[in-house]
Amino acid sequence: MHILVLGAAGMVGRKLSERLVRDGRLGSQPISRLTLQDIVAPVPPAGAAMPVSTVTCDFSDAGAAAPLVAERPDVIFHLAAIVSGEAEADFDKGYRVNFGGTHALLEAIRAVGGGYKPRLVFTSSIAVFGAPFHDKIDDEFFHTPLTSYGTQKAVCELLITDYSRRGVLDGISIRLPTVCVRPGRPNKAASGFFSNIIREPLNGEEAVLPVSEEVRHWHASPRSTVGFLLQAGTMELTRLGWRRSLTMPGLSATVGEQIVALTRVAGPKVAARIRREPDPAIIAIVAGWPRDFAAVRARELGFTTAEATFDDIIRIHIEDELGGKFVG
Amino acid sequence: MHILVLGAAGMVGRKLSERLVRDGRLGSQPISRLTLQDIVAPVPPAGAAMPVSTVTCDFSDAGAAAPLVAERPDVIFHLAAIVSGEAEADFDKGYRVNFGGTHALLEAIRAVGGGYKPRLVFTSSIAVFGAPFHDKIDDEFFHTPLTSYGTQKAVCELLITDYSRRGVLDGISIRLPTVCVRPGRPNKAASGFFSNIIREPLNGEEAVLPVSEEVRHWHASPRSTVGFLLQAGTMELTRLGWRRSLTMPGLSATVGEQIVALTRVAGPKVAARIRREPDPAIIAIVAGWPRDFAAVRARELGFTTAEATFDDIIRIHIEDELGGKFVG
Repeated sequence: MHILVLGAAGMVGRKLSERLVRDGRLGSQPISRLTLQDIVAPVPPAGAAMPVSTVTCDFSDAGAAAPLVAERPDVIFHLAAIVSGEAEADFDKGYRVNFGGTHALLEAIRAVGGGYKPRLVFTSSIAVFGAPFHDKIDDEFFHTPLTSYGTQKAVCELLITDYSRRGVLDGISIRLPTVCVRPGRPNKAASGFFSNIIREPLNGEEAVLPVSEEVRHWHASPRSTVGFLLQAGTMELTRLGWRRSLTMPGLSATVGEQIVALTRVAGPKVAARIRREPDPAIIAIVAGWPRDFAAVRARELGFTTAEATFDDIIRIHIEDELGGKFVG
Repeated sequence: MHILVLGAAGMVGRKLSERLVRDGRLGSQPISRLTLQDIVAPVPPAGAAMPVSTVTCDFSDAGAAAPLVAERPDVIFHLAAIVSGEAEADFDKGYRVNFGGTHALLEAIRAVGGGYKPRLVFTSSIAVFGAPFHDKIDDEFFHTPLTSYGTQKAVCELLITDYSRRGVLDGISIRLPTVCVRPGRPNKAASGFFSNIIREPLNGEEAVLPVSEEVRHWHASPRSTVGFLLQAGTMELTRLGWRRSLTMPGLSATVGEQIVALTRVAGPKVAARIRREPDPAIIAIVAGWPRDFAAVRARELGFTTAEATFDDIIRIHIEDELGGKFVG
């Protein structure tokens, strides 16, 4: 089985690639070859038993998609995207990459012909939903994105379903929760604080909390996120009918619950490293975000999280990123 | 006020153009100029008090959209589309026109610049919904089209909302019910019988009913349909927020109710011209169609139908199309 990962240098792309190399198989199928693409050179994970090739290109450039699919990868994980803030700041770039690039990819797959019909796993986003919405959003709620990024994701979901229905590919779109705890350094994303207030204190550093403890949001660990991708890459998609877009399960927690969990797992000294510094701009942005989802359909279809509580999310971070240790 | 009608030679486009010429104004604004576009030459309505120009072109051809918007029409009614059956039969043509053409139109508007921000009224369709659905579909139900046509309409709705939010245009998408009674000759559309079983008997001709009398569907008269377009062209759209796609009100009726209404309005001799001839192919297609909508939001925003009963739909057809007479 030949697997292509688009956007392999991103955080989720790296974790997925490492997992594929470690497992050596996807479901019951041995991986004979892995191709990693990104706009910056992807670093092949160490210790691969199969050939790993890397492609450094902008997948949305004219003609870039055709060579990526010419060797008929069996499964394509499509994680490549301009992130929300940049797609909002740069209208043309967001539409060119997130919309035009994905459309060009679908057309390139269609052009291969000869019965080629790969599994396509597309990472969509809960940004397809926009306020006002119910406290707990059900699986049949409509899509009213309030960003260009969310619009582009919703459009790609529709295209992937129709191209699947027409027999061009076997596609599924999965809407990921906010990944928490996100490893690495703090970034300027408005959602960054959900991870910062856990990660930095565990490193012995101070973190800034810009919103109130009442803010509720939807989370999944990196480990669960990779699990969703593997499930989407292997499951029988006829079970979904032509409703190929799924909100992934997650954990709904308030910031206050996050802090209580951190205190339980790592102690009050660690939790005391969180400094409250309300930021009206971030408060306003976060007010428009979803708080909770039913995600019944995804759970029924076998998508499961690795965590039942926020304590688990913190423990997974300590295990997977910190080698089991933190600064107490 | 300069008005551009795209798809002006179609049935709804002709009726809208005639109404605009007859009224001489849109809302409170006098119409100073009317431009009618279609792929076949539009026929300018008789008796126009304002200059009417016609443009015959495929609006989805490269470069076709720019000259259409170069003269900065204030209101654009975008009715141009490849119909459902053809978009399903010809994948490339459907995507090129319904998806690519509309995207090119939005981009052409964006390229005009200089503060140009027209009202864009886009005719979408209840084909954005696909079975299974509730008996009465509410305004927050998700979009799961089961045709490429429905997919293309749903995608355009999303783009029009985002381009509106970004200040490129002031757009609204209205999902029209099945237009009934559709004037003209019977056509081969799977939905044709809803109109055929009224129109042909009133003309003294036999009509074929291919489904059972229990089939329920969602209707609006041509007169109501034009009313929806005028309302969408004049109303204050800030009232919609960024939820710019609306299911129009209609009348939910079974085929049996249609026939009872025909008997009441035109007599049993007319209704006896309907011949039952079940067609398994049409029965299967129609089983996947929506039956009823709440359409609460559109009604609250001032969209109203001209008909409270199917009797009214038949009377409107007799008044508007048959000069008040029928073959009894």
